[in-house]
Amino acid sequence: MTENVQGKPAIILLSGGMDSATVLALAKRQGYHCYALSFCYGQRHSAELDAAAKLAEQAEVERYEVVDLSLSQFGGSALTDESIDVPTQEGEGIPVTYVPARNTVFLSIALAWAEVIHAQDIFIGVNAVDYSGYPDCRPEFIESFQAMANLATKTAVEGHPFQIHTPLIDLSKGDIIRLGMDLGVDYFQTVTCYSADSKGRACGQCDACRLRKIGFQEAGLDDKTYYV
Amino acid sequence: MTENVQGKPAIILLSGGMDSATVLALAKRQGYHCYALSFCYGQRHSAELDAAAKLAEQAEVERYEVVDLSLSQFGGSALTDESIDVPTQEGEGIPVTYVPARNTVFLSIALAWAEVIHAQDIFIGVNAVDYSGYPDCRPEFIESFQAMANLATKTAVEGHPFQIHTPLIDLSKGDIIRLGMDLGVDYFQTVTCYSADSKGRACGQCDACRLRKIGFQEAGLDDKTYYV
Repeated sequence: MTENVQGKPAIILLSGGMDSATVLALAKRQGYHCYALSFCYGQRHSAELDAAAKLAEQAEVERYEVVDLSLSQFGGSALTDESIDVPTQEGEGIPVTYVPARNTVFLSIALAWAEVIHAQDIFIGVNAVDYSGYPDCRPEFIESFQAMANLATKTAVEGHPFQIHTPLIDLSKGDIIRLGMDLGVDYFQTVTCYSADSKGRACGQCDACRLRKIGFQEAGLDDKTYYV
Repeated sequence: MTENVQGKPAIILLSGGMDSATVLALAKRQGYHCYALSFCYGQRHSAELDAAAKLAEQAEVERYEVVDLSLSQFGGSALTDESIDVPTQEGEGIPVTYVPARNTVFLSIALAWAEVIHAQDIFIGVNAVDYSGYPDCRPEFIESFQAMANLATKTAVEGHPFQIHTPLIDLSKGDIIRLGMDLGVDYFQTVTCYSADSKGRACGQCDACRLRKIGFQEAGLDDKTYYV
């Protein structure tokens, strides 16, 4: 890619986890002016929002917004519904931590903000290698969302199409961490655990913790995560 | 269509305007169990939400949900940004009442709820004939959203695809009103005006009022709307 992106505005979906922290650092390094977006969606691991706010501040983003959206109003996921336990063992199929249509909703709201600030670039840290099997992390979903966005919006209809950037989609967790270390990401500020307590301490047993540990091992980084 | 939909759950996007009131009545007549969904998104015409709640109650929906979502946090539309006036004359191109990515956001959240209640049918009252030129009211957008939804979700990946129903998309405003009259819709309970006051009184001058008036004329219905 030879396009000069210096100073172009971009929306970065920032959860406060490892992947989105890496994406933010990468977009910044590429020269984008970063607008970071988080969601308070009724997730039980709301400690990740504290992490996201710190990451946004350290990256000196142009603006940081947290959108309140109560997906827990509907329930249906272990991450938003107190009556469903977060599994501590790997299972078959798409796990109960799947949040219905989450990335679709997040990207849609990112698209709304992008139109307002005249950004055509949206970054999301989805990954289809070491992941939990969520359908909305796959490249075919992202391509389809981008095509839809380019029919949905005034910006695109007027000749300025959107691009959904997924720089981590083909990387292993180890690759992601090695990339982020080069970019100066401090992973021990990120919160990964689905059941993290209010201080961000991790359970060490859920799917997200498991993938995080594998990543640290692959990247040869000492795991200084604070486990309960 | 010969499929028996009796008792199937469906999400109905319900704004409180004429089109969505018609769609709700139609889905109910077809036999769907209706779950109505409205959004409190910072719109200046929040009187439409009172109308939506009444319409949902009268239709005896299974459940009625209002999702709070502050699109006014981003601004960028005359409908959500107090600093942009609602035009009182027809203009060229896509008007400033366009809300960035609104139908994308609304359909995405409808999709999230649909997954939770095991509904595969989502109804939206978009119309591509007598409309304001919004890109997210066009059939190509709806088709693209449906294709995306069927890649995004666990429900679809597991073999139960979603369908986005747009029964009004090819109808004129007059046709819509004639259809709704057959279904028993009381249009004078609906709120259309972009600048409706807190009592639901209409300005009579905005694009939405203009289209509503044309519809009543075409359908030969006395316009009992309360104008300021």
